[in-house]
Amino acid sequence: MVRRDELRAGERAVESLPPPDAGVIFIGRIRTPWTDRLLCPRQGRHDGPVCRIEIDAPWAPEGLDGIEAYERLEVLYWLHRSRRDIVRQSPASDGTARGVFSLRSPVRPNPIGTSVVRLVGRKGSALLVQGLDCLDGTPLLDIKPDRSGFTPVAPRQPGDDETAAA
Amino acid sequence: MVRRDELRAGERAVESLPPPDAGVIFIGRIRTPWTDRLLCPRQGRHDGPVCRIEIDAPWAPEGLDGIEAYERLEVLYWLHRSRRDIVRQSPASDGTARGVFSLRSPVRPNPIGTSVVRLVGRKGSALLVQGLDCLDGTPLLDIKPDRSGFTPVAPRQPGDDETAAA
Repeated sequence: MVRRDELRAGERAVESLPPPDAGVIFIGRIRTPWTDRLLCPRQGRHDGPVCRIEIDAPWAPEGLDGIEAYERLEVLYWLHRSRRDIVRQSPASDGTARGVFSLRSPVRPNPIGTSVVRLVGRKGSALLVQGLDCLDGTPLLDIKPDRSGFTPVAPRQPGDDETAAA
Repeated sequence: MVRRDELRAGERAVESLPPPDAGVIFIGRIRTPWTDRLLCPRQGRHDGPVCRIEIDAPWAPEGLDGIEAYERLEVLYWLHRSRRDIVRQSPASDGTARGVFSLRSPVRPNPIGTSVVRLVGRKGSALLVQGLDCLDGTPLLDIKPDRSGFTPVAPRQPGDDETAAA
């Protein structure tokens, strides 16, 4: 079951969260069918419900110019309902636990969710997509073409040709 | 060429950045061979140089428990040297421009880079990986198993079985 806010057997929270080092801006929000964390998918699916990503001014519509060229987009969002302090977690609630970085749990020091979605359409400053897994109203952080379908527009740099030393 | 801080022909910056809505914590740092933005790869490669991800206490070593089970990890980092205000960009510096969300440029409202890396080894609170593209000293935000190799540990939820209405 989704964590409400409890600490489970085998889990450990850090004593206190350090102060923030930098700030994120919420650039829009995500509309999904899921209004309770108990209903959200664990992972989005590309044949899942069509969701709507609304991007605010001054970032849209101009920042979306050219996006229709990409079928797959990477979406970053802020998991605003998640605890951030549980370094050892027990997702199955069975007492076995592992480190937060071995999990895709929403509970993490920086609660940033990432999904690769399928672009279904655009309406002005909003995108229709499939493949999300988050709560309705989740704050949006970023959208970029998925790396699998993207070729850099900028000229190559020396690092592009570097490989591991033999 | 990499942007130093200039605005190029055809580009547009927003007038001012809104205040932050939430704070991120730098949980460690990334050591790479690239000490200048002019040398960084445009995209990391899995046969690229071995880089070192150092995770700070209190997040490691405990938060890394179990990570060796995954060959592919998703890494999120803060592009601390990037402008955040350019909504229309000209990566080729040729006057043609497109929206920031149609690019994987480091210059974006929330300068969060994402890479999928190959885990080569672990030494206590540090990971050795291939596939990064960022500057030496880049602040670390998160590490999670790449979705392609991850099966949720937590029980399924109703949303996992929802598909688009016919």
